[in-house]
Amino acid sequence: MNTLTLVLGGARSGKSRYAEALLTRLPAPWHYLATGQAWDEEMRTRVFEHRSRRGEGWHTVEVPVALGQALDEAGEHPVLVDCLTLWLSNLLLGEHDLEQASADLMAALQRRRAPTVLVASEVGLGIIPDNALARRFRDAAGLLHQRIAELADSVVLVVAGLPMPVKG
Amino acid sequence: MNTLTLVLGGARSGKSRYAEALLTRLPAPWHYLATGQAWDEEMRTRVFEHRSRRGEGWHTVEVPVALGQALDEAGEHPVLVDCLTLWLSNLLLGEHDLEQASADLMAALQRRRAPTVLVASEVGLGIIPDNALARRFRDAAGLLHQRIAELADSVVLVVAGLPMPVKG
Amino acid sequence: MNTLTLVLGGARSGKSRYAEALLTRLPAPWHYLATGQAWDEEMRTRVFEHRSRRGEGWHTVEVPVALGQALDEAGEHPVLVDCLTLWLSNLLLGEHDLEQASADLMAALQRRRAPTVLVASEVGLGIIPDNALARRFRDAAGLLHQRIAELADSVVLVVAGLPMPVKG
Repeated sequence: MNTLTLVLGGARSGKSRYAEALLTRLPAPWHYLATGQAWDEEMRTRVFEHRSRRGEGWHTVEVPVALGQALDEAGEHPVLVDCLTLWLSNLLLGEHDLEQASADLMAALQRRRAPTVLVASEVGLGIIPDNALARRFRDAAGLLHQRIAELADSVVLVVAGLPMPVKG
Repeated sequence: MNTLTLVLGGARSGKSRYAEALLTRLPAPWHYLATGQAWDEEMRTRVFEHRSRRGEGWHTVEVPVALGQALDEAGEHPVLVDCLTLWLSNLLLGEHDLEQASADLMAALQRRRAPTVLVASEVGLGIIPDNALARRFRDAAGLLHQRIAELADSVVLVVAGLPMPVKG
Repeated sequence: MNTLTLVLGGARSGKSRYAEALLTRLPAPWHYLATGQAWDEEMRTRVFEHRSRRGEGWHTVEVPVALGQALDEAGEHPVLVDCLTLWLSNLLLGEHDLEQASADLMAALQRRRAPTVLVASEVGLGIIPDNALARRFRDAAGLLHQRIAELADSVVLVVAGLPMPVKG
């Protein structure tokens, strides 16, 4: 398995399940960096579903913002970050410094020596949103995916649960 | 030609035309299961365009909801279902039992022995919708596509009229 | 390099950068047909960023509408059109004759003998828009992409800065 993998996909495309399967081929424990914050019922249900599916062998850490630091702390363990899109949303809604947080993330990814899988939603293939915040969000997501894809050993686009190779 | 093919694509991507061409390589008659209901002028125009393009050899059946049953009734004839997305929309708007209808569809697909092509819109690659019903819809579509793709012999994503292989 | 290339991609997918790199492998000057009109600050910033990145060797022509004619005028020089999506938007918002303009574009593309790269946003893979103009826009974009893809020697879908081959 490559060291850094970016798993892109749409809503309910099976991207998390695909990413989990990449990790569980390796010896446990697997570190799961969960960026989602359960603000509402819909989100709580989704977080619960993902967690029930994963089962034994996973060490879950909630990481709404300090992702670079959490990657360093995972050390030699294989890591799954699920997902970059919610992390970006936390940064934008919390008015954090996006440039700094992205730079910290990229630096931490370059320091990683153990397998790392990043999940992200592809959100840029619909009609341009009316809403300025939504446009800013999809621009930030697109730029982040480009930077990570450049560094990644492998990039896949998950469609209907199936991986389409993009890189590697 | 494989037995079960899922043709995914965006709006006006040429997915219906591509799917029709898969069927018309086989001997006629071809059963066309049309799930679209012509609620408004825009939809009536589109249904009319699709029907004019198809021409001779097609046996059209309107199937807004009972898709599993219609697949059984098509028996040994090649079938095109156009499209799953409108069918799902009919189920959600009509407050039908989505789980039951999906289970009936999957069971009918497993019973099929003749070539079957299913067309569906990929709707999960844009920004997350504001609207709760739209989110529920794209979640249901994503999950349905995953289930069918798992069973399918072949899955393609049509982009600008051209098929990108996803499976098979 | 092929004569006619269509580069599709989502928002901030790196499609322009990829397209520019295709052209700059060839001897300068490269003609840049810019269809974007800087209506607001957001757009002015984007146009400025693209222009700063391109640097020396580029001959920029602003072409909000008369794209067929501009392609003819570029003669034997390699041409980049960035992008078809803004051109289509100018046609629809300016209430130009879309059929005529598309026919003129297709005719000019067929007359081209020098390398031509067309950039366009893929906008049809999200949820169906509420707004009738947005639906008309994404339908027009989808149909235009199909027509050009049929004529093109090469079509790529850029995801996270990386080209996925669609044709050629």
